[in-house]
Amino acid sequence: MPEHREPTYVYSEKQVAEKSAIARHFLAVRTRLNENVERTDNLLVKRFYNLDHNTYLEGALPAKYKELMGLVASTCLRCDDCINYHVIQCFRLGVSRAEQEEALNIALVVGGSIVIPHMRRAYELLSELYG
Amino acid sequence: MPEHREPTYVYSEKQVAEKSAIARHFLAVRTRLNENVERTDNLLVKRFYNLDHNTYLEGALPAKYKELMGLVASTCLRCDDCINYHVIQCFRLGVSRAEQEEALNIALVVGGSIVIPHMRRAYELLSELYG
Amino acid sequence: MPEHREPTYVYSEKQVAEKSAIARHFLAVRTRLNENVERTDNLLVKRFYNLDHNTYLEGALPAKYKELMGLVASTCLRCDDCINYHVIQCFRLGVSRAEQEEALNIALVVGGSIVIPHMRRAYELLSELYG
Amino acid sequence: MPEHREPTYVYSEKQVAEKSAIARHFLAVRTRLNENVERTDNLLVKRFYNLDHNTYLEGALPAKYKELMGLVASTCLRCDDCINYHVIQCFRLGVSRAEQEEALNIALVVGGSIVIPHMRRAYELLSELYG
Amino acid sequence: MPEHREPTYVYSEKQVAEKSAIARHFLAVRTRLNENVERTDNLLVKRFYNLDHNTYLEGALPAKYKELMGLVASTCLRCDDCINYHVIQCFRLGVSRAEQEEALNIALVVGGSIVIPHMRRAYELLSELYG
Amino acid sequence: MPEHREPTYVYSEKQVAEKSAIARHFLAVRTRLNENVERTDNLLVKRFYNLDHNTYLEGALPAKYKELMGLVASTCLRCDDCINYHVIQCFRLGVSRAEQEEALNIALVVGGSIVIPHMRRAYELLSELYG
Repeated sequence: MPEHREPTYVYSEKQVAEKSAIARHFLAVRTRLNENVERTDNLLVKRFYNLDHNTYLEGALPAKYKELMGLVASTCLRCDDCINYHVIQCFRLGVSRAEQEEALNIALVVGGSIVIPHMRRAYELLSELYG
Repeated sequence: MPEHREPTYVYSEKQVAEKSAIARHFLAVRTRLNENVERTDNLLVKRFYNLDHNTYLEGALPAKYKELMGLVASTCLRCDDCINYHVIQCFRLGVSRAEQEEALNIALVVGGSIVIPHMRRAYELLSELYG
Repeated sequence: MPEHREPTYVYSEKQVAEKSAIARHFLAVRTRLNENVERTDNLLVKRFYNLDHNTYLEGALPAKYKELMGLVASTCLRCDDCINYHVIQCFRLGVSRAEQEEALNIALVVGGSIVIPHMRRAYELLSELYG
Repeated sequence: MPEHREPTYVYSEKQVAEKSAIARHFLAVRTRLNENVERTDNLLVKRFYNLDHNTYLEGALPAKYKELMGLVASTCLRCDDCINYHVIQCFRLGVSRAEQEEALNIALVVGGSIVIPHMRRAYELLSELYG
Repeated sequence: MPEHREPTYVYSEKQVAEKSAIARHFLAVRTRLNENVERTDNLLVKRFYNLDHNTYLEGALPAKYKELMGLVASTCLRCDDCINYHVIQCFRLGVSRAEQEEALNIALVVGGSIVIPHMRRAYELLSELYG
Repeated sequence: MPEHREPTYVYSEKQVAEKSAIARHFLAVRTRLNENVERTDNLLVKRFYNLDHNTYLEGALPAKYKELMGLVASTCLRCDDCINYHVIQCFRLGVSRAEQEEALNIALVVGGSIVIPHMRRAYELLSELYG
């Protein structure tokens, strides 16, 4: 099994927040709510968060493709918060807009027209990030 | 926008069917049922099949990562037939077993323990294909 | 509010079972399992079954369109048993094959390619019923 | 196969927006986000939108029943934007309130109590549209 | 079959609304939308609401565990309104915060990371209610 | 936070397999497929299995109610394998048939009629186990 390691980011969360009002708002709410979860100190939640983190490390698959897979999963399961998170992570790892769109296309075709409202919102975030 | 083109397969469907009884059975049933659908000559279905085919062509993203994204989507949406299809397509494109497992891990963590019965069956197919 | 009443069937379940091996098997298993549920005499289940029955009666909407709506719901939620049930009910109410296919097309486009394996099996039942 | 053609609307989108504040807000946001998607000029998205449009044309089934089927699918898959869209389309095609409610009932019974929050919001839109 | 009866609440809805701004807003919107649904006087909706109410009565299972089961179902099906409702009902029945967290853990592990945004919001409500 | 510990089972898996042909078949297939997964030695899968196991330990909530919550989650997410697993676990922990039925009722009302085919199969297993 290949060794896993943290990916190298092209942009920090702070730089993303400067580029996009949608990302800024999303990251601020997420940080606030996660801080409240952390104060609870629920062991199982902590372990799930840790497992979740490890799933997207560099490994047999490059981290950028794993984040794109997270984006596809989030989009076909239709969760706006998860879509925002993975679009931002992909952007931070240097994924191009064309690559993000092709991943969204897979989610659209697999998940159907019910995905469209989420895709529209994802495109708005893409436009803010990639200008 | 990048030009899209058919990917190059390392293995034919016939070779896959020789390696795995699960794949052989799956491909035979799928072919029989698809022939019945085609006889109906429903224009919208044909156009959907065509769109579906084009989604996985080589483009901004390599075809092998697109098939892995199809696998992640199929697994977190919990469709055994779709999982079998994308595991086979990944294998035909030269994806390694470790890469398939990491994609399945993303689906497991995003989709939760409800995914496990499908993952177990996917692992059985992986074992037949990769030996 | 319009009065609700039982629809008039063109075919009995028995006639459907004679036309199609898939329908025959489905109806036999369903009858056996429902008899076991009924022996349990669970009041809430009985009331849910009753509510379910009333939902598809002739009313402001003709029963045949309600059954087609049940088919669309069952297909985009991807339940083979429910699809079989509503395809059979539609057939019994005189719905044409073209009408059933257009309803399935709506489910396919709303629900995406993940619906295809279920649609393929529905088409096999359609072919047995409509010849 | 029956010829497909555009349905005849009783009301324009503009007239709907005048009747209902919920519809007005929904249509304005949808238009803005769709314009952003269109600027991207993603070929596969365009083709999916085109396929989606064709699915609801007059055909073997009258357009009004197809929109009601879209409403049932959207409601049991629990997408508020899609519900708003189909409630508005049904209204524009002359569907009565009683017909919309019976379609929502099918979605409620098939999809369960998890559908109720979406149904409540749909009823608010119905009240604004039908007065 | 055990007799079913109304549970005894430790807190009224009014007391819950005084403790938590999230609960107050949620209950106010829910009441307003439900009043609109009730004015419609749709018989099937009324019967569904009645069935829904009876499902959570004291019976073979204590009402507090039934509400926790409703919370697990709502969380793994990812409906914020339903989560809010059952968190409030559990609180009103004297369920402890630790018990609510363990139920949310089951929903997290069964439903996967896609559940996390809903869990984060549930924890914010828990913090307001339990202080 | 309460200490977590293994629950005490009234019946072993072997005893369950002797009582019910459905359980016997389910447990045999599950064991065979899990052994294949374990041979793969995928670290993330192992950690997920471990987390999953810990979720259902005795804690603030008694293990029997946690297994019933797992049953509700599995039923409203419509996974037959997961339903079989939790019905068996509940039985092994001494849960009564009436308690299992009330948990299934919650899943039925939350999840709707799409749950019925799974509920029917669950009732068949209940009849074999409780006689």
